[in-house]
Amino acid sequence: MSSPGAADKRGGASQGAARSGTDRACGSVESVSVPGVRVGLVGATGYTGMELARLLAAHPFMRLTRATSRREEGRDLADLHPFLRGTAAGELPVSAPDPEDLARACDLVFLAVPHGAAMSIAAELLRRGLRVLDLSADFRLRDTAVYERWYATGHTERALAAEAVYGLPELHGAELAGARLTANPGCYPTGAILGLYPTLKNGIACDAPPIIDAKSGVSGAGREARVGSLFSEVSDNFKAYGLGTHRHTPEIEQELSLIAGRPLTVSFSPHLLPVNRGILSTIYVDLRRPDAALRDIRALYAEAYADHAFVRLLPDGALPDLRSVRGSMYCDIGLVKDERNGRLIIVTCIDNMCRGASGQAVACANRMCGLPPAAGLGLIPLAP
Amino acid sequence: MSSPGAADKRGGASQGAARSGTDRACGSVESVSVPGVRVGLVGATGYTGMELARLLAAHPFMRLTRATSRREEGRDLADLHPFLRGTAAGELPVSAPDPEDLARACDLVFLAVPHGAAMSIAAELLRRGLRVLDLSADFRLRDTAVYERWYATGHTERALAAEAVYGLPELHGAELAGARLTANPGCYPTGAILGLYPTLKNGIACDAPPIIDAKSGVSGAGREARVGSLFSEVSDNFKAYGLGTHRHTPEIEQELSLIAGRPLTVSFSPHLLPVNRGILSTIYVDLRRPDAALRDIRALYAEAYADHAFVRLLPDGALPDLRSVRGSMYCDIGLVKDERNGRLIIVTCIDNMCRGASGQAVACANRMCGLPPAAGLGLIPLAP
Amino acid sequence: MSSPGAADKRGGASQGAARSGTDRACGSVESVSVPGVRVGLVGATGYTGMELARLLAAHPFMRLTRATSRREEGRDLADLHPFLRGTAAGELPVSAPDPEDLARACDLVFLAVPHGAAMSIAAELLRRGLRVLDLSADFRLRDTAVYERWYATGHTERALAAEAVYGLPELHGAELAGARLTANPGCYPTGAILGLYPTLKNGIACDAPPIIDAKSGVSGAGREARVGSLFSEVSDNFKAYGLGTHRHTPEIEQELSLIAGRPLTVSFSPHLLPVNRGILSTIYVDLRRPDAALRDIRALYAEAYADHAFVRLLPDGALPDLRSVRGSMYCDIGLVKDERNGRLIIVTCIDNMCRGASGQAVACANRMCGLPPAAGLGLIPLAP
Amino acid sequence: MSSPGAADKRGGASQGAARSGTDRACGSVESVSVPGVRVGLVGATGYTGMELARLLAAHPFMRLTRATSRREEGRDLADLHPFLRGTAAGELPVSAPDPEDLARACDLVFLAVPHGAAMSIAAELLRRGLRVLDLSADFRLRDTAVYERWYATGHTERALAAEAVYGLPELHGAELAGARLTANPGCYPTGAILGLYPTLKNGIACDAPPIIDAKSGVSGAGREARVGSLFSEVSDNFKAYGLGTHRHTPEIEQELSLIAGRPLTVSFSPHLLPVNRGILSTIYVDLRRPDAALRDIRALYAEAYADHAFVRLLPDGALPDLRSVRGSMYCDIGLVKDERNGRLIIVTCIDNMCRGASGQAVACANRMCGLPPAAGLGLIPLAP
Repeated sequence: MSSPGAADKRGGASQGAARSGTDRACGSVESVSVPGVRVGLVGATGYTGMELARLLAAHPFMRLTRATSRREEGRDLADLHPFLRGTAAGELPVSAPDPEDLARACDLVFLAVPHGAAMSIAAELLRRGLRVLDLSADFRLRDTAVYERWYATGHTERALAAEAVYGLPELHGAELAGARLTANPGCYPTGAILGLYPTLKNGIACDAPPIIDAKSGVSGAGREARVGSLFSEVSDNFKAYGLGTHRHTPEIEQELSLIAGRPLTVSFSPHLLPVNRGILSTIYVDLRRPDAALRDIRALYAEAYADHAFVRLLPDGALPDLRSVRGSMYCDIGLVKDERNGRLIIVTCIDNMCRGASGQAVACANRMCGLPPAAGLGLIPLAP
Repeated sequence: MSSPGAADKRGGASQGAARSGTDRACGSVESVSVPGVRVGLVGATGYTGMELARLLAAHPFMRLTRATSRREEGRDLADLHPFLRGTAAGELPVSAPDPEDLARACDLVFLAVPHGAAMSIAAELLRRGLRVLDLSADFRLRDTAVYERWYATGHTERALAAEAVYGLPELHGAELAGARLTANPGCYPTGAILGLYPTLKNGIACDAPPIIDAKSGVSGAGREARVGSLFSEVSDNFKAYGLGTHRHTPEIEQELSLIAGRPLTVSFSPHLLPVNRGILSTIYVDLRRPDAALRDIRALYAEAYADHAFVRLLPDGALPDLRSVRGSMYCDIGLVKDERNGRLIIVTCIDNMCRGASGQAVACANRMCGLPPAAGLGLIPLAP
Repeated sequence: MSSPGAADKRGGASQGAARSGTDRACGSVESVSVPGVRVGLVGATGYTGMELARLLAAHPFMRLTRATSRREEGRDLADLHPFLRGTAAGELPVSAPDPEDLARACDLVFLAVPHGAAMSIAAELLRRGLRVLDLSADFRLRDTAVYERWYATGHTERALAAEAVYGLPELHGAELAGARLTANPGCYPTGAILGLYPTLKNGIACDAPPIIDAKSGVSGAGREARVGSLFSEVSDNFKAYGLGTHRHTPEIEQELSLIAGRPLTVSFSPHLLPVNRGILSTIYVDLRRPDAALRDIRALYAEAYADHAFVRLLPDGALPDLRSVRGSMYCDIGLVKDERNGRLIIVTCIDNMCRGASGQAVACANRMCGLPPAAGLGLIPLAP
Repeated sequence: MSSPGAADKRGGASQGAARSGTDRACGSVESVSVPGVRVGLVGATGYTGMELARLLAAHPFMRLTRATSRREEGRDLADLHPFLRGTAAGELPVSAPDPEDLARACDLVFLAVPHGAAMSIAAELLRRGLRVLDLSADFRLRDTAVYERWYATGHTERALAAEAVYGLPELHGAELAGARLTANPGCYPTGAILGLYPTLKNGIACDAPPIIDAKSGVSGAGREARVGSLFSEVSDNFKAYGLGTHRHTPEIEQELSLIAGRPLTVSFSPHLLPVNRGILSTIYVDLRRPDAALRDIRALYAEAYADHAFVRLLPDGALPDLRSVRGSMYCDIGLVKDERNGRLIIVTCIDNMCRGASGQAVACANRMCGLPPAAGLGLIPLAP
């Protein structure tokens, strides 16, 4: 009942163990040496911070060297997030955010702090030569006047807003390669833009504003203690909110207008699902040619995403669901033609925490650092 | 808006991509060559089959070469399980189970079929020189008379029942190394036995039968279409079931008696939780010395699991929860002393699908094949 | 510690107790004598049957005298549905369906059986002088050719299909008064039609087909044992289904065309929510006059439902949620003007089991029998 | 399409409508005149306040005349709790708590405020001649020294603590009849005490401390905004908490000691279920006579609750579940004999919000005011 072959205490819980060792019976493995990118995480307590920690704990070429939170300074990261116990990331002591310290310890920093707070931190870190991946909204809108109107706060870093790359890899992959500053897309925009990209790029839609009826899991609301996010308010419940006023609207319209080559508005209707993770968007487009064949439309989508493994175009008749993308980078797309009404219905699913936030941030960071684009992101969805 | 650096279509979705490539900017990586173990999965449609497919799709040294299901023959595995779309495992065509074909294509076979059906298939495959990992109950009980009484069916492979190793790595790691046939433990027994092992091994409990009050997610009931497992029956609900009659009782008692070195019964009370994955067991033991210090008891647990990275003993005052182990191999253990009543309360959490079934099966298979014990199992839990 | 004032054993669990007794200290109550309508329930095992039993167990003027199920014959209703234990309804023995027996024991019969099966039973019962409330789809479509096309089965009772009243009280209240046969509306149509009624009646929409993006709880799928309705398939998940093909489409279009006075199609997109009860419909209408004021539109809704207590028009800025109508007859309606795109967004919520099925059936039966329209339906929603 | 028979606007949504009207076709109904008890609700915003409002909105002999909340003063109750819209209770303006005003407007006041705050308000209201039903813990423990130790706060109203009746109707029904002040039991104690009462009263248990392994829905944690109660923390999760330290422990022990006639401790282990409502307690008792027949034990339970309609003893082999009591006053009890270990396992279910808090408060208030004990509580459970 002893266990001579027991896993090494630390290695058992990290991907590292899987990448070394000897395979006497069935194959052979060589050791791998990886110096890796040193990364910092500013804002370790929220859900995007948690998800970044999850991904970085298993990233083959990135090493988490700093995790900051003023409130939790001094505790180990695993004390905040017990799922990390037993990993190297979990043993990292949480520190207070300090630009000098971050500059010494990191090559790239992820900012998982609220909008408004990120812009000045980003500026300080860039000044010290770091690369910055900002998960807030601060650099998503090129026109800072639009930012100021929708977010009701001043923008102090206009030049950086102009420089920042909008971090949707399928659209802006080339620009990400050399980027110093990336603005990670919002969760809703990610699913909406990927769903509409082939349609608008190929001009098959009428001018009528598309309708994006989107449904999101609760983690998208963040980890602040609010009555509206309590289990007993959300569970066994469902509601629409922010119709016509949600802050992701201008971000969606900015990117779709760029794709379409003309100013474009949308009707964007978010809803709150009683699930942890995931966004499903049901998108309605009136077709320029009502009798366009779904087969031909599907071909446009297949072509647009031919080189992008994280977008999965579902076969004819199949529709996406949240659990098939849970915990992963996939954006699943299903297409339906409403023949009687000449409409195209596009249904997309993403994991709002991974693809819609932290995973996409890692994908962008991979490109910013010249790592393999999918490094650390080969995550098989968790179902059920 | 083009994407020259786009991920290779297949590689993007597999762990493979993460293990090769060049890192110009920030580090260096060498290529790795792994022949790998060829594995088959008999019973691909249920939840344990799904979970095996998830784990095998990302396993660095195992390659899924057969997945069988009579009913779904001819379809791709990703048609059954859309979360696999885009992976090599997902493109595997489902075949009808055929021992000859399996013997040609595989080194080891996982049996994810109902009890009663597994024993004869196992015999056929062993006869053809394959290694077999059985996830059913057919080989868990050494005494086939006990099996026949609790499972109300005859046992046709007594010699194999005597040969089979009970696949709990922390207890039977050495025996697994050379095993041809492993009986994967039940989900409830895994959490119960790991929770009681240090207590019984060290003789600190009274003779009174321990109480195991266990609460399991619904995936443990399998994927058969049954009214009792419908969402509207389980959601926002909770119940006890099978008190005193659950079939995992003799399995728990067999292993605990072995540990304690004396015949031992338990009160085992399963409950059905409205969650997908996870089992929490609250275990009550009357202490031989009511004034035993929790500090000393904790030391016994720390010692027992010192070499076992997948068991995490929580710090004083901390109690486990399901989400901190979701999707992973961890068994988290929290200890509480009920001082007024001289009782030890042990709380354990596992993911019933991963640690309690398919992940544990992979851990055993790693040892049977001489692979690194934790290969493919460095899974960071998914929270939330 | 004795309880001389204990509630009478039976009365304690029924509304009856609340309607009699003496109030020495604080008021006075008189006894009430109610002969009541004798009702039968054909199809007692499913969710609509359960919900009817719940409502009838507390109905002041209806008495459940028969509950039928071939499979469960001989058991008490409370054995099937333990929540009924302790009520008079719960003690009713389940019998096999027999028209003669039903005719002797009942004045009105609710049919909670699948479509296709209901039409012939209805005919048999009507022939024997009973009133019939059919919860299936068999008599909802006036044009039986449309029925046969969408339901892929023949219709054998065309005359009855022509006679049946579509049981939406707000639209067809007058016709229900004398009705022998009522076709209870589908769950989706109830929320969709009530949401669009004032808009179409007043002609404020463009001719473009409205979009109805509807999200339903799982109880709407019925209580059949199906993999797709299992907890582990539905929980923490969300998906669209039946886009463009759902059978409630022609029913919605029939009623909306009647209201609008012109043939009208819709884009109807159902989705499956991980909740037990409730349907939320987000409805998009392009306004004839894009600059129409929301205030004026709201006035049309207020007027249309002025005499209908079960429709609640929410104040400006408020949007409905499922839990505020759970277990009740309410249809809550919120209105939003998408000013930039000239669209009206109508959001409606109902409980699919109560308002969308069994409660609406009771409301219709009340009118068919000349009872107070809201009798037995004064249900305060259960939140949370 | 008009609706001449439409329900009266207000009546349609209240029980009132159900209690008057004419039944031309099928029966006859007489009008009922009820002056009613005027009640106040101090603390209208939390979950117990919500649940009281739900019950009072439909109570035949009580009328809510005041609902207080400092923070929400001036809004209608339906603005806080939209499910109340359309009811008379919903139109009540929320006021700031003022003893003078309450004394003028009410006969009895429910206190739904945190422990510590209730004791002085109760004293002020009693001084003004009101009856008081306190839902906090302030008057549950007869020994205020025990209160002060477990709640870590001083007790300023010892005389009232001695006078207060512990409001469990099955145990203290007679004392409630003339009571001025009732301490409403905690949610956990309600299910635990009712489960153990017949066992301890009849002395069939050993002296060993019973184990109460209890699992509660999240509404029991209240409506404060706390990270630990967020949907994304609780959903798809489960954990134990407060083992050996939960404040309901001394309350359970006080009442069980009274029943047993000797000082008695328990092991009380609460757990947090991902459901809104409900507590299931699994209770383990070592039998004095290990071979006692379950049939005889069941008879003791049947006798103990013969006059108490809200306790339902389930038939042999049946176990309770949460949904069968949801929204109701029922306490369901299932009994299992663990023959091999000489143990009795008692499983009880209640709705923590209704039976475990606000419904029980109404039941006590009924008795305090001489109303029929079950008035307003004939609630059929909502399943699913």
